[in-house]
Amino acid sequence: MGLFITFEGPDGSGKTTASKGVYDKLLNEGFDVIYTREPGGIEIAEQIRKVILDVNNTNMDYKTEALLYAASRRQHLVEKVLPALDDNKIVICDRFIDSSLAYQGYARGLGIDEIFEINMFAIENHMPDKTIFLDIDANTALDRIKSRIEKDRLDIEGLQFHNKVFEGYQNVIDRFKDRIVKIDARLTPDEIIELCYKEVIKLINV
Amino acid sequence: MGLFITFEGPDGSGKTTASKGVYDKLLNEGFDVIYTREPGGIEIAEQIRKVILDVNNTNMDYKTEALLYAASRRQHLVEKVLPALDDNKIVICDRFIDSSLAYQGYARGLGIDEIFEINMFAIENHMPDKTIFLDIDANTALDRIKSRIEKDRLDIEGLQFHNKVFEGYQNVIDRFKDRIVKIDARLTPDEIIELCYKEVIKLINV
Repeated sequence: MGLFITFEGPDGSGKTTASKGVYDKLLNEGFDVIYTREPGGIEIAEQIRKVILDVNNTNMDYKTEALLYAASRRQHLVEKVLPALDDNKIVICDRFIDSSLAYQGYARGLGIDEIFEINMFAIENHMPDKTIFLDIDANTALDRIKSRIEKDRLDIEGLQFHNKVFEGYQNVIDRFKDRIVKIDARLTPDEIIELCYKEVIKLINV
Repeated sequence: MGLFITFEGPDGSGKTTASKGVYDKLLNEGFDVIYTREPGGIEIAEQIRKVILDVNNTNMDYKTEALLYAASRRQHLVEKVLPALDDNKIVICDRFIDSSLAYQGYARGLGIDEIFEINMFAIENHMPDKTIFLDIDANTALDRIKSRIEKDRLDIEGLQFHNKVFEGYQNVIDRFKDRIVKIDARLTPDEIIELCYKEVIKLINV
C-alpha cells in the first residue's frame, strides 16, 4: 500500500514548485511515484471543475461549491489516487482535503467541522499519510500572487479572503499536528525541495 | 413563510402526474403556488445534472453521484425554493431529499444515514413541511415504466435496482412517519389528485 503525500499552502506559497520538485527528485532516485492534482485529467472531475470555475456562475452558493469540490475529489481519488496506492506507488498530490477545510470551511465561513464531514464521506479513510504545508506570511504570498495573471472566479476575491485562508490553514494545522509538517516557504526552491524530500524519505524508512 | 410540499415515489408511480395535477388545482383555486423539480431551470443545477446524466460517465462513482445530487439540490433550493417560500408561496416539488435516501442511500448501498447527513449539509433546516408518497407495488410500477422510452444513464439499471428502490422508500417512510403521507397510486389520477389536494389544504388550515 503506497504512500499518499499531499502539499498544501495558500496561493503564492510555492506549493506547486515544491511538489513538482519533490516528484522529480523521487523519480530521479528511482522511486515509483506519480504527481497529480485535482481534477487530474479525470474526465468527470474535469467536468465538475468546469462548473465550479465557470465565471458566469457568480451566483453559486458556497455550499454548492463545497459539495462540488468534494464530488470532484471523490472521483479523482477513486480513479487515480487509489489505483496508484494499490500499486504501491508514492502519490504526490497538490492540494487535497485541507484546502477545502481552509478555503470553504474557514474562509467561506461554512465551518471546518462541516466541511470535514462531507469530505470524509467523499474520501472515507483515505487521509494522506503526510501533508507538507508551505509556510509563508500573508503579505509575502500576496506579493507573489500579484505578479500572476489569472482569470478564474476564485481570483476575483479580495485581500480579506486571502487573509482568512491564512487563518484557516493555521486552524487546520493545529487540528492535524501529527499529519501536517510545516516547511518554511521563504527558503530557496532547492532548499524547500530538499526538506520536503527528506520528509518523504523519513516515511519510507519507517 | 409559505408551504413546502414534496412528491416522492419510484419511477412509474405516477408522481409527476399527481404533483402537476395538484399544482393546477391549487392554481385554479387561487392559491399562490409554484411547481418545480430539480434542477428546475437553475443554470448551475442544470450544469450539474448534465454531468450526472452524461451517458459517457459510466465510471462515475456512486459517492460522486450522491455529492452531485446534493450540490444540485442545494443550488435549486437556494435560488428557487427558498425565495418562493419567503414570498409565502406554496412550493410543489417533484422529488427531493427522500429520493436520494431511497436511491443513493439504500438502493446504491451508500447508507441512508450517510446520505441524510450530506443532504442536511445541503438543505440545512429546510425539510419539506409535508411529503406525499405515491404508493405502488414494484410490479405495477415496472409495467408502467416499460411502456416509456428513456435514454439517460439511470435507466440502464435493471430490475434488481428497481426493487431495491422500493425497499429503500419503505425504509424512508418508516423513518419519517410524521412528514410522509402515503397515497394509493392505483387509484385514478383524478382520485389521487383530489386526495393529495386535501392533504395540502389540511396544512393550510392548521
